[in-house]
This record gives sequence, structure tokens and C-alpha cells, in this order.
Amino acid sequence: MNTKIGILGYGNLGRGIECAVRQNKDMELMAVFTRREPKTVSIQTDGVAVCSAADIKNWQGKLDVIILCGGSATDLPVQTAHYAKYFNVVDSFDTHARIPEHFDRVDAAAREGAHTAIISAGWDPGMFSINRLYADAILPEGKDYTFWGRGVSQGHSDAIRRIEGVKNAKQYTIPVEEALEAVRAGKNPELSTRQKHTRECFVVLKEGASAVKVEKEIKTMPNYFADYNTTVHFISEEEFLRDHSEIPHGGCVIRSGVTGWEKEHKNIIEYRLKLDSNPEFTSSVLVACARAAHRLAADGQSGCKTLFDIPPAYLSAKSAQELRAGIL
Amino acid sequence: MNTKIGILGYGNLGRGIECAVRQNKDMELMAVFTRREPKTVSIQTDGVAVCSAADIKNWQGKLDVIILCGGSATDLPVQTAHYAKYFNVVDSFDTHARIPEHFDRVDAAAREGAHTAIISAGWDPGMFSINRLYADAILPEGKDYTFWGRGVSQGHSDAIRRIEGVKNAKQYTIPVEEALEAVRAGKNPELSTRQKHTRECFVVLKEGASAVKVEKEIKTMPNYFADYNTTVHFISEEEFLRDHSEIPHGGCVIRSGVTGWEKEHKNIIEYRLKLDSNPEFTSSVLVACARAAHRLAADGQSGCKTLFDIPPAYLSAKSAQELRAGIL
Repeated sequence: MNTKIGILGYGNLGRGIECAVRQNKDMELMAVFTRREPKTVSIQTDGVAVCSAADIKNWQGKLDVIILCGGSATDLPVQTAHYAKYFNVVDSFDTHARIPEHFDRVDAAAREGAHTAIISAGWDPGMFSINRLYADAILPEGKDYTFWGRGVSQGHSDAIRRIEGVKNAKQYTIPVEEALEAVRAGKNPELSTRQKHTRECFVVLKEGASAVKVEKEIKTMPNYFADYNTTVHFISEEEFLRDHSEIPHGGCVIRSGVTGWEKEHKNIIEYRLKLDSNPEFTSSVLVACARAAHRLAADGQSGCKTLFDIPPAYLSAKSAQELRAGIL
Repeated sequence: MNTKIGILGYGNLGRGIECAVRQNKDMELMAVFTRREPKTVSIQTDGVAVCSAADIKNWQGKLDVIILCGGSATDLPVQTAHYAKYFNVVDSFDTHARIPEHFDRVDAAAREGAHTAIISAGWDPGMFSINRLYADAILPEGKDYTFWGRGVSQGHSDAIRRIEGVKNAKQYTIPVEEALEAVRAGKNPELSTRQKHTRECFVVLKEGASAVKVEKEIKTMPNYFADYNTTVHFISEEEFLRDHSEIPHGGCVIRSGVTGWEKEHKNIIEYRLKLDSNPEFTSSVLVACARAAHRLAADGQSGCKTLFDIPPAYLSAKSAQELRAGIL
């Protein structure tokens, strides 16, 4: 069964969805909805409408799933519950601490509308979460580690850009290699924040700004940098545009646990991502979830779901027979 | 809800199940069933009955799930469908090519008995399969690789032991490091059998046997060794018992796929296992599947399932709320 997709919001994530839909033959992009003036937004797919977000309700019955591409700070807490009343929806809500309340709100709305909503899809939350769950279920006596990077943290880059004298900036989160090695060796170390990750910043200064002052302000910034070993590089705008225009990311989830009557055997499970494009990979997960949302809705399974609730086969374009014969 | 477990077959896998059940507070081992004389089988758990496999049907209503610990060659093709009529069952059937027919037979039997059967659980098939599925669903344009090892192949060790003049033997399957590196670097190489894995054999000879003859027989054995670079070490029985008594295994599943409008971004997904004990890890997966089988049965979802059909949360002892708050 083909899935007719709408995209709400056309930033990095929305553009990634457009690309991912194109890679899946059972998916069809029907419309992109924007809060900007539609005429000012040009998309890549020929013949697909760009519409005002205000008109989205006119599309009821014409879309199987809307993928919500707003931010977790202010957009999704409002949008997902709102649209779940009228459509099957998928979002990438990633404020971990607020997932339970977001879930409850979206669940109530989706049940009211008899629709299916999948929240917090992507890689963390998302694929990393699934792997934490499987590993915890298989090795109940063990210890979990999540490392992020090497990759761009949008939040930390934004924080640097808000400093006076900074023209542009990009921050890379980097796992500490010795910590990773100790975890992979099954040593189950206790690791402080500082021992797990370092932060590397590439900064373009405005004319006349003081590098010394900016560097100090970055390194002492509470929450963002103060608890980390941070390196700051000041570079030219040319170098910045040439070497730091991409949005790579990745990381790994590792569980180290014991088995055996005397707990004498160590077992290590690791899930690792190395992504040239964080938003495109996130989008690829969201599109697979849109397929699942469509199927769950067709089964009459309304309400809010996460990847924890979705049988893996629901994410795949392949039939159950093909999966058992070819992938199991 | 607690799950009352029966074990059929008390070899390496059965003993692993016994250990894994002990690590899960919501699991209770009720009985071990054996085709041997029960008095000759001594198990580790105090107060648990060892019973004749012939009496298993008397346990209907007293067990939530039976975990079938026989082999895939001759035991499971008969046992799983047979017992699925009377009990919820879990098996580790691992003959990939015969999974579809095994599924159909077990599905018919389980539906007839209104029970739930989960087949082909473990790590390959099992956790590796799930990771192949997720990665294929997320990155539809890409290439899959599965590497096994470093670990003991029981089948290859058996094949060596059948050679005249061999007293004992163990064979380790080892991924070729350069192949792994090329795959992890996103180079999508075409790899022959020989380029993916090497085989390392540790052999104890019977008195008077010819090392030259045995080595030649191993290295030229069709299917098992002829297509691989194989190393043979002849060692003493003492060394064999000291260094080669464990059954470690592991490996990795890697998918390398592209995203972006022009497919300009590479993304690598890797799932990796490093297991001190292959049978105990397999058992740990089977026990988590027993929990899922019990829950699916309670939902009225009878028939045959694989890990592809099971929402991840069903494998976990934690509640949906705990999972969303703590692991998502």
C-alpha cells in the first residue's frame, strides 16, 4: 500500500524528508506546508504543491501521514497534539525529559481523532533508544553507555553564535577515545561528563572582536561548555564555509552485561552510527515511521506510539514473507 | 506478570536458559524436560523438577512458555510445530534457508492450538536480523554486510573432529580486518567468501596420526574450508583444555547507504556483538522472547511470530511508562 505524505515545515528536516520520500517507491509526497508565504518557498520535487500551514485541514482525506518538521522547543509541543486530531502524524520530539508529558498529550488527541501518532522518532531518541531497550532486555545485569559524535551539536553552535563578537560558529561533540575503549573492553568504567566527551569549536570572529575574550566566554559557559574539555579554533570565513558547511553526526550505544550461573561471562552489544548528514538520516527514520503509522492506522491502532511499540516489520517496505526469506 | 518457564533439552542452550531465567525477576523456572533418563540429569536450580520429555503434556496449564533447546537439524523441525499445539513456545531455529517452511508449519500448529510461537530467536537469526531489517528500512539505497567472529563455529569444529586421527578440535571464524575497515569506511566493496573471513583451527591429534595428512584434509574440505584461508595449529590436549574450552562468538551487521537529493551523503549503521558465551547470549535472547510470547498470547495474538513481528517493548520487563521515561 502506498503512503501519501505531507510535510509541515521546510527547514533541514523537511528537506531531508523530501529526499527520503524520493528513495522509497511506496511513498508519495503530496504537499509541503509552511508558515512562510508559500510563494517564497521553492522545493525540489516537481509538481508538488507548497501550501500555507493555515490550509492544512483542507487536506484531510488526501494525506495518509503528515511528518511534522518543527523544533522540539516550541513547535512540536503544540503542533503534534493539534494535528493528531485530524491526521496520522510523525514527529522527532527530542527533549528527553519531556517525552512522557508530550506522549500523554498527543495520545489523548490522537485517540480523540482516531488517528495514529508516532513521536520521538529519529536516532536519539529513536534508533539509539530501541537499541538501549533491546540490550537492556537481553542483558538485564549490565551497564549502558551512550556516546555522541563526532558530530555537530546545533544547540552548542547556536550558544556560541549568541556571544558578542562571534560572526559564525560550529561545535563538534567528540567521544573520548580512551573512555570508548574501556567500555568496549567490558571494563564498565564510571565516567564523568568530562571523561566521556570533548567539545571542539570553530569560530569566525566579527571584525575587531577579541579572541581571548570570546574563547574565555565559550569555555566557562555553564551547562554548555564548563564541564567539558573544550578546544576553540578561530578561522576565516572562507575556511568555515569550505570545511564546516555539513551537518555530520553519529555516536554509539553500548551495553556491557554478564551471563552465566556465576556471572562469569561478559557480553558487549554495540550499535553505532556514522552519519554524513544528521538531518537526512533522521528524516530517513521518520519516513520509515510514516509507513508504520499508516499501517498501524489501517489496523485501527490509534493513539500515540513510539518506536518501542512498533513491530520492526511495520517499518519495512518488504512483505513479511520477503523479510523472513531474505533478511531473517 | 510473571512468566512460568519450561525448558526442553538440557545441553549448552538449556543450561544457558536456566542461567538467564535466574537473572530475570519476572521469570520462574518450573521444570526441565529431557529425553534422557531424568535421574541422570542434574540441574543447578534448587527445587526445580527434571521430568521426562514424554510427560510434558501433563504440564499444560502450569507453564506459560516452553523454550525448546534442541538442534535445528533434526529436533526443532519436529518439536516446535508439535509442542505449539499445546503450549506457547520459543525456539532458536537457525537454518536460514528453511525458515519459511518452518514458519508455515509452526504457524498452522500454533493457530490450531490457539498458542503463540516465536521461532528463530537468538542473534543470527535474531538480533542481527532485526538490525538488518531496521537498517534496510531506514537506508533503502545501500549495501548490507554481515561478518561473524571472532568465534567458535560448532559445525566446523565437528567437521574437523570427524577426520581420522583427530582427537579434539575447535575452529574459530575470524573476519578479515581489511574487509571490515573498507566496509566501515563506506567503500561498499564486493567481497568474495575468502575476502570476508579466515578460519583458524586448533587440533589435538590421536597418537600416531599424521599432522601433514590431517592439515591437508582440513584445508581442502569442500564447503567448510576449501573456499577460505585456513590456518591449522596442532596443540597438546592440556593446551586445548586450558585455552579452548569456552564458546565465544560475535560479529557485526553493517549497512552503508546514501541519502540526499543527489545521494551525496554516506551513512553507516553498525550493530556489533562480542560474546564470551554464544549459548548464554542466545539463551538471554530466547528468555526475553519467552516474555514476549507470554504477553502476545495474553493479547490473543496466536500463531507463529519472529522478532520482526514483536514490538520491542514486549521483550522488556519494564513498563511502557518506565521505558519512555528512562530509555527513550
